[in-house]
This record gives sequence, structure tokens and C-alpha cells, in this order.
Amino acid sequence: MTARNRRITFYRTPVGLPVPEDFGVDETPIPVPGTGQFLSRTVYLSLDPYYRNVMKNSPIYADRLAPGDVMVGETVAEVIESRHPDFGVGDFVAVRNGWQQYALSSGQGARKLDPALAPLSTALGVLGMPGLTGWAGMIHLGEPLPGQTAVVSACTGPVGSTAGQVAAHMGARVVGIAGSAEKCDYAVRELGYAACVNYKDGDLVAALKDACPRGIDVYFDNVGGDILAAVLRNLALGARVVLCGMIEAYSMPSPPPGPPLGAVVGARASIKGLVVYDHLHRAAEMERVVSGWIRDGSFRYREDITEGLDNAPAAFCALMRGQNFGKALVRVAPERV
Amino acid sequence: MTARNRRITFYRTPVGLPVPEDFGVDETPIPVPGTGQFLSRTVYLSLDPYYRNVMKNSPIYADRLAPGDVMVGETVAEVIESRHPDFGVGDFVAVRNGWQQYALSSGQGARKLDPALAPLSTALGVLGMPGLTGWAGMIHLGEPLPGQTAVVSACTGPVGSTAGQVAAHMGARVVGIAGSAEKCDYAVRELGYAACVNYKDGDLVAALKDACPRGIDVYFDNVGGDILAAVLRNLALGARVVLCGMIEAYSMPSPPPGPPLGAVVGARASIKGLVVYDHLHRAAEMERVVSGWIRDGSFRYREDITEGLDNAPAAFCALMRGQNFGKALVRVAPERV
Repeated sequence: MTARNRRITFYRTPVGLPVPEDFGVDETPIPVPGTGQFLSRTVYLSLDPYYRNVMKNSPIYADRLAPGDVMVGETVAEVIESRHPDFGVGDFVAVRNGWQQYALSSGQGARKLDPALAPLSTALGVLGMPGLTGWAGMIHLGEPLPGQTAVVSACTGPVGSTAGQVAAHMGARVVGIAGSAEKCDYAVRELGYAACVNYKDGDLVAALKDACPRGIDVYFDNVGGDILAAVLRNLALGARVVLCGMIEAYSMPSPPPGPPLGAVVGARASIKGLVVYDHLHRAAEMERVVSGWIRDGSFRYREDITEGLDNAPAAFCALMRGQNFGKALVRVAPERV
Repeated sequence: MTARNRRITFYRTPVGLPVPEDFGVDETPIPVPGTGQFLSRTVYLSLDPYYRNVMKNSPIYADRLAPGDVMVGETVAEVIESRHPDFGVGDFVAVRNGWQQYALSSGQGARKLDPALAPLSTALGVLGMPGLTGWAGMIHLGEPLPGQTAVVSACTGPVGSTAGQVAAHMGARVVGIAGSAEKCDYAVRELGYAACVNYKDGDLVAALKDACPRGIDVYFDNVGGDILAAVLRNLALGARVVLCGMIEAYSMPSPPPGPPLGAVVGARASIKGLVVYDHLHRAAEMERVVSGWIRDGSFRYREDITEGLDNAPAAFCALMRGQNFGKALVRVAPERV
């Protein structure tokens, strides 16, 4: 029996939170690279909340999908056949293979990985786009000063844990926000945060006041909604609020109202929108510094790995419900075969 | 019959928008200055939306009032009796006499006025706190560049007309937002704005899109609410939004939700809170430059003057309903007697 290329496809736009039935599955022949192309086998697939926006299939997204199209997505893959001068068989690459076992690439946007730097999977997490988001947003928009208080929501995920640990390396006191006692425990014990607030535990405004008695100087927001509103009621003078993602809103048919903004005036605060693509020129520096911290043990990360491509839809749906703990990945195939 | 000091007092906290019955009136003896004090007669009383917040009588406001207390407020007054070395009889001063005909001052916070600079009433408007608000907020937070589009709401009032005309002097294309055809006509004809949108005329999002085809680079917000939300849907990349006042919210029992903030992320925009008291060190520069523009005709302003202290409550209530046109003042007494 010839090997085939198994793919998870877009079936329909979810209503509210996605369900596995919003996806399809099929098998196609494994494609053959033409001149200037390479074929790679997917090892890790990254699961990211923004896929939910792509599934809205709105013309404003470049990644617009038709039913039956393979789901888009970032992957780590191994080159297994190459007619490209810069990529050889056995090279590991970060490449947008999407939710499938094999894909061709022209090399555009593909990035060769150095396995000595850090585990390959980190190219999709703390050393990839999520890490760059946390790094650039905290350093260049949040601008924490030594001794200031930096708060991070979704604080154990790849974006949040990078933002928080970068702030700690900059001398700030870091307070996390997460959705379970287990995550909060990890944030304090492993990530070295000064405190962590479980937003499901009652009065978040009061809990933040307790954890941040001198107010919040920097807030790195990954969630929007009520958590953002609670933070705004605890701002220090001159606070910077970095808006990164609004995971809650992605599954809503129209954008919900935002938080009352009166406190922003009173605190002379700034709210700043962060889009990681503006910071791609900072990726090499981030990778160099953070991989050094990983190797010397001063930067931790956690991954939530689902085994097998067929389980990707369920894992993505769990991610959108906040049920993952760490960077959500699918192991599509073993690193070494 | 001896002269008496007529005063408008705080009677009760308004429910929603204020009504004249929320105020009282009384007469007291005219006070006599002690050593280091002067007595002045009020000429102009400034009406400002923030008084509505003072009337909430909340402990967070320094100006907390008890029923029967004279209403606080900025005034232009003439010194008529002085035991203060720096203020002489006949001097005109900007001083916080409140809503009354006569008051004592220790000189603290009082500012001597130069009648040659500009008409005395401007000390409460475009050359006073409102002008400084528009000046500092536009220059230091809005930071418009030549050729960029700056939008100002409440654009014919003292704050908005200063913010808009400052942006025009900086080379920006200025688009106003106001609540009547008459105000819009004035904004274009007298203030030199490129366009003005009447927010009561149907679809504000579409009207702003028309008036700002390349998007809004700077928005100076005086109102919050739906107008702010409509502007956020028209931001240019890298836009700056200056939050100054939220007049709508002042009459509400609890803060309303804010606008959806997703567009702030997409536009990589910044929202910045402005409090004029942070910029008092810029007052002398503002007064020098703007008074020069007034004298050379390149800066216009409009006043909405109500005659007589007893009409102050009704005029304030009209202001809170947006029924004034230009800086709201009460002429408590003629400039020269």
C-alpha cells in the first residue's frame, strides 16, 4: 500500500466555540517537489487561537479557506526530498505545512532550525511566533522598569510565560493570572512569578489589589473581557496595557463591548495594540537571548502535546476553551523515524 | 442697604443629568480680607462638565461638597481690596471664587491676568485649563504629523477647538465632530477644519470613513461612548487616541462599558489617558503661543455667555446636555464698574 497524505480540512465556520465536527479529514497523494521546492513531513503542528478567526472565512483574512481546504497552521517538519538549493534532506524547518502529514514548500517563510539551540518544538512556542509576541510586546510596548509590577494573563501559555519571564529578567515583579490552581502553582513555582491569581476564584479586582498593592504598571493582556476590565481598576499611574489577543471575542459573532475606560484617564495610562508581524526583525535577537536562558535554566516553558493528527480538532477545541496547560501542540509524527 | 454676597450652593447630588433644582441660593455678608488675603468680585464664572463629578460628592474628589456649600468653580475676578503683597486693587485674576459674587483668596493658585494679551474671559477657556488640555493633549499625546488626519470631538468647545486648531498649526488635516449643522458649519468656516461630521446625522462610522479616507491618525476624544467606538473603527495604522473627558459617563450611576478594542490591536494604535494637571508646567508656553495666534487671527474661539449668577444652574444643565455652543461662561458682573 502506497503512503498517503492525511489532512485535516476546514468543513464549516463554527457557531460560537468550535467543535470537532467543524473539521473534515481526507487523504491525498503525497506531492512531488518541482524545481525550487522541497517536501517535508510534519513533526509538530502548532495550535493557535487565531485559527478560530481564519475559520470565520471572512475576506479580511489572508488565509481565507473554502470548505475542503486543508487547515492552515505553523509546523515543525523534516525535509525528506529537496529540489531547493538552501534546504537539504534531514534539515528540520519551521514551515507552514498546515494540518497535514506532508507538504511542499518553495522555501518562502521557511526557517531552518538548529537542534542544538533548544528542543525543536520550541520553534512553535517560546522560540517562535508566540515567544516573539511576548518578547516584543513586553520589551517594546510594556517597557517595565526594575521594581515595577507587571501582570500577565494566560500566564502559563507560550505568549504569557515569555512575556512574564522577560519582565522578570528586566527586574520587574511579575504577577500572573491563570484559570486554575494548578496553573497558578506552576507559575509561581516554575516560572518564578511573585504571585498568581486564579480568575475563577471570586473577586478578581480585589485579588489583584492584594497581589499588586502598588498598582499595576504593565499589563500584558492575552484575553480581553472581564479580566482586562478588572486590571484597569488596579492601574498604577502611567501604566502601559498591551493588548495582544482577545481569545474570548474570537468565538463571538460580533465584537463585545470593551471595559469602561475612565480609569485609563485617571491613571494617565496607555493602551497599546500589539501585532507580532511588526516585530519580525526582532526574532533573531529573541531566539538568541531566550534560548540562552533556556539552556542556563532561567527560563521555563511547558508544552501540552496531543498525539496524532486525527486528534488535532479536539485539541484545538480544548484550547479555545482554555483547557490546555502550556503551548498546545500536536505530534503528527516522531522527530526521528 | 448693605451689599451682600449672593451665592449658588450645592443642594443635592443629581440623579442622571443635573437639573436647576439640584442647586440652592443664599446671601451672606461680603467677607473682609485678613493679612495675606485679597477680596475680589467675580466677573466671569466658568462652567465645566467636571462639576457634575464634584456633585457626586464622592470621597475620591478633593472638592467634596456638603449641602449648602457654595459650588466650586474657576472664575475671572477683579481685586477690590487687598492685604496681599502681590495682588493690588484693580488687578484682574484667574481664581477659584466658585459660584458667588465675592470671595477671599490667599493668592494660592491665583494667576494675575494681562488684559493686553487677549480678552479676560479667555483665561477660563482657550487660554485657561480647557485650552491647556487641548494644547498639551494634542501636542504631547496625540503627536500629529504634517499631512496626517486629526479628528476632534466636541470640536467647537474650548478644549476641542484648541486641540483642533493646534493640530492644524502642526500641519495636520483636521476633521471635527459636533452635534449640530450650525456647529459643523462654524468648525469649517471659522476654525478652518477640513471637514466636520454631525454625529446626529445617521451613520457616524460611514461619515468618518468618508471624511477620513486614509484613516484617522489622531483622535482627541472629549466624549467617549458611541462616538469613540465609531472612531476606533476608522483608525489608521499607528493611530493615537487621546482620552480626555467622558461627559456622557459623568451623569451615569456606574461607568458604562467601553468600545470594542479589537480594532486597537489591528491598527497597532495607542489609547492614552490625559489629565491636564500633569501639564501645568506647559501653561506659560501655551498662553504665549495661543495668545499670539489669537492676535494674528489664526486661532478662533467662541463663547456662550449667560447673563447673571442666578442663571448659572440652568446654564450648567444646558452644558451637560450639549446645548451650549462655545465655552460656557456666566457673566456675574461687568468687567468695568
